[in-house]
Amino acid sequence: MTLAAVAKEAGVSMPTVSKVLNGRSDVSRATRATVERLLELHGYRRRSRPASRAPLIELVFHELDSIWAMELIRGVESVARENRATVVLTESGTRHAPAPDWLPGVLRRRPLGVVLVFSTLPGEVRRRLGAAAIPFVVIDPAGDPDPDVASVGSANWAGGLAATRHLIDRRHRRIAIITGPEDMLCSLARLDGYRSAMAMAGLEADPRLTRFGDFHVRGGFAHAMDLLEGPDRPTAIFAGSDLQALGVLEAARVRGLRVPRDLSVVGYDDVPLAQWSSPPLTTVHQPLRHMAEEAARMLLRPDDPGTAAHRIELATHLVVRQSTAPPAGP
Amino acid sequence: MTLAAVAKEAGVSMPTVSKVLNGRSDVSRATRATVERLLELHGYRRRSRPASRAPLIELVFHELDSIWAMELIRGVESVARENRATVVLTESGTRHAPAPDWLPGVLRRRPLGVVLVFSTLPGEVRRRLGAAAIPFVVIDPAGDPDPDVASVGSANWAGGLAATRHLIDRRHRRIAIITGPEDMLCSLARLDGYRSAMAMAGLEADPRLTRFGDFHVRGGFAHAMDLLEGPDRPTAIFAGSDLQALGVLEAARVRGLRVPRDLSVVGYDDVPLAQWSSPPLTTVHQPLRHMAEEAARMLLRPDDPGTAAHRIELATHLVVRQSTAPPAGP
Repeated sequence: MTLAAVAKEAGVSMPTVSKVLNGRSDVSRATRATVERLLELHGYRRRSRPASRAPLIELVFHELDSIWAMELIRGVESVARENRATVVLTESGTRHAPAPDWLPGVLRRRPLGVVLVFSTLPGEVRRRLGAAAIPFVVIDPAGDPDPDVASVGSANWAGGLAATRHLIDRRHRRIAIITGPEDMLCSLARLDGYRSAMAMAGLEADPRLTRFGDFHVRGGFAHAMDLLEGPDRPTAIFAGSDLQALGVLEAARVRGLRVPRDLSVVGYDDVPLAQWSSPPLTTVHQPLRHMAEEAARMLLRPDDPGTAAHRIELATHLVVRQSTAPPAGP
Repeated sequence: MTLAAVAKEAGVSMPTVSKVLNGRSDVSRATRATVERLLELHGYRRRSRPASRAPLIELVFHELDSIWAMELIRGVESVARENRATVVLTESGTRHAPAPDWLPGVLRRRPLGVVLVFSTLPGEVRRRLGAAAIPFVVIDPAGDPDPDVASVGSANWAGGLAATRHLIDRRHRRIAIITGPEDMLCSLARLDGYRSAMAMAGLEADPRLTRFGDFHVRGGFAHAMDLLEGPDRPTAIFAGSDLQALGVLEAARVRGLRVPRDLSVVGYDDVPLAQWSSPPLTTVHQPLRHMAEEAARMLLRPDDPGTAAHRIELATHLVVRQSTAPPAGP
């Protein structure tokens, strides 16, 4: 199916088809819809010539101040460099969709592809990227992928299990968890990993020791201040994120407890600051840079029929540093 | 002076002049040199029409894993967004110059301008950016600006002075400094600020208490382990960077000293992790995001005759948190 045939079937001129492909706005909504439907129908995506693309990879964040952002940028940048491409960085409006003026810019730049962090894509944006044969992949550490979109995530349940087992192996019995927000699947998966590890060891997961944080220092601090009050306090806290773990360390300091002698702490993510805290954090390594590399590579594999709706989940693993030890005797 | 007149004077065709302007490689070296000299001579820079530029701002790092990188990216990104422009991010080969294939890409993209972090620019790169009327600004936290290049820095000497005065005000007398590498002007400026504060207070700056670190955690840790050994130890350490301060906190923990009761610590930079350490760091705020915003704004001011060789130095200020207190009595 050539473009000329698409034009004929749509009852429009070739320049109009070309305008649609290039995302120009001077085409009526109805015409665009017709042409895009035909282009999609005839698998036009595969016919595009990569040579016509600018050597750019677009990277879209909804929030650049995330402590993860740097790791993800470095991952995409290194794959871009290997492929002699350059990274275009955008902070989008909201977590749910790129800002409205983002799409025309992308269509004009004609990048090799788009890596989105955390964002979901409205159907129309997807259709127009598809019609322009611009592939896209979502990096989704939250573990809540749209089944129709290619995405890269990591193994949250297994991470929660490994963190908790490590504490059980160190002979802790009263183990608290401060997981992330209750409405994020990754928080629930880590919590379920914790519960399974406790159950497999025959330990009760005291519901008073389960807290939902905000994945930030303040959440870790506030919950730990509360958990560490009183005689029945836990001897270990699985903090759900490295930032929450830093909040737990500060709460321990304020409460006069030494880590790891009086309290063991496990983080999650293994961002660079995990090794710089005092003491350095035992934490679950989430391979953020590797996830970003994978996402960028998925874009660059030409004509991979699997890319259109594909999920890669990378493994997590525990990194043992100095914030965990067996509990001090009574 | 029109382009046609330049072509005539150079004895070449208009398309050749246009090729030079666009950075194409199919022009002989000698011809390029002649045309560029004439373009420069006739101030062609000012005649370029901003409308012909892509709405891109190029941001070039020599090292993306710097803890500063995120702050700088956010600063440039926010100014780009205000101006409906997009950020193109490159990690260059070395601290001294962008990778060789970087320049053709920039000339092809024709961005609004280029922000370089820390890099110096070889003369030829400068000339070709100039001939293509692409402005550039260097963000130079190291305090070692090339006088011919527009740059943004911050007040390192004043920062060192403020940090040390704060410790003197808290009644410390034996104050150590771990500054940065000896070959960086910002290290020397901070050290001179420390020395001046000590001298103004009539205090001796014991040379054994002056150390040159690496601006990284390990340097802070190693020097602090050494400084904190023995009875004659300092009661306060000005750590020269926040990462070095984290290393000092860890050394204090290992030596069994409590911060701030047994040791006061001041950092430098005020990157986000300074407020997340335990205890939160008293530190000198270096306005990295603001520096990046300034640099991006300098690019976007059209026809500003001052931009070509202009230095802006932003103020630093002390942020008092919980890592400093008067020394405990003997």
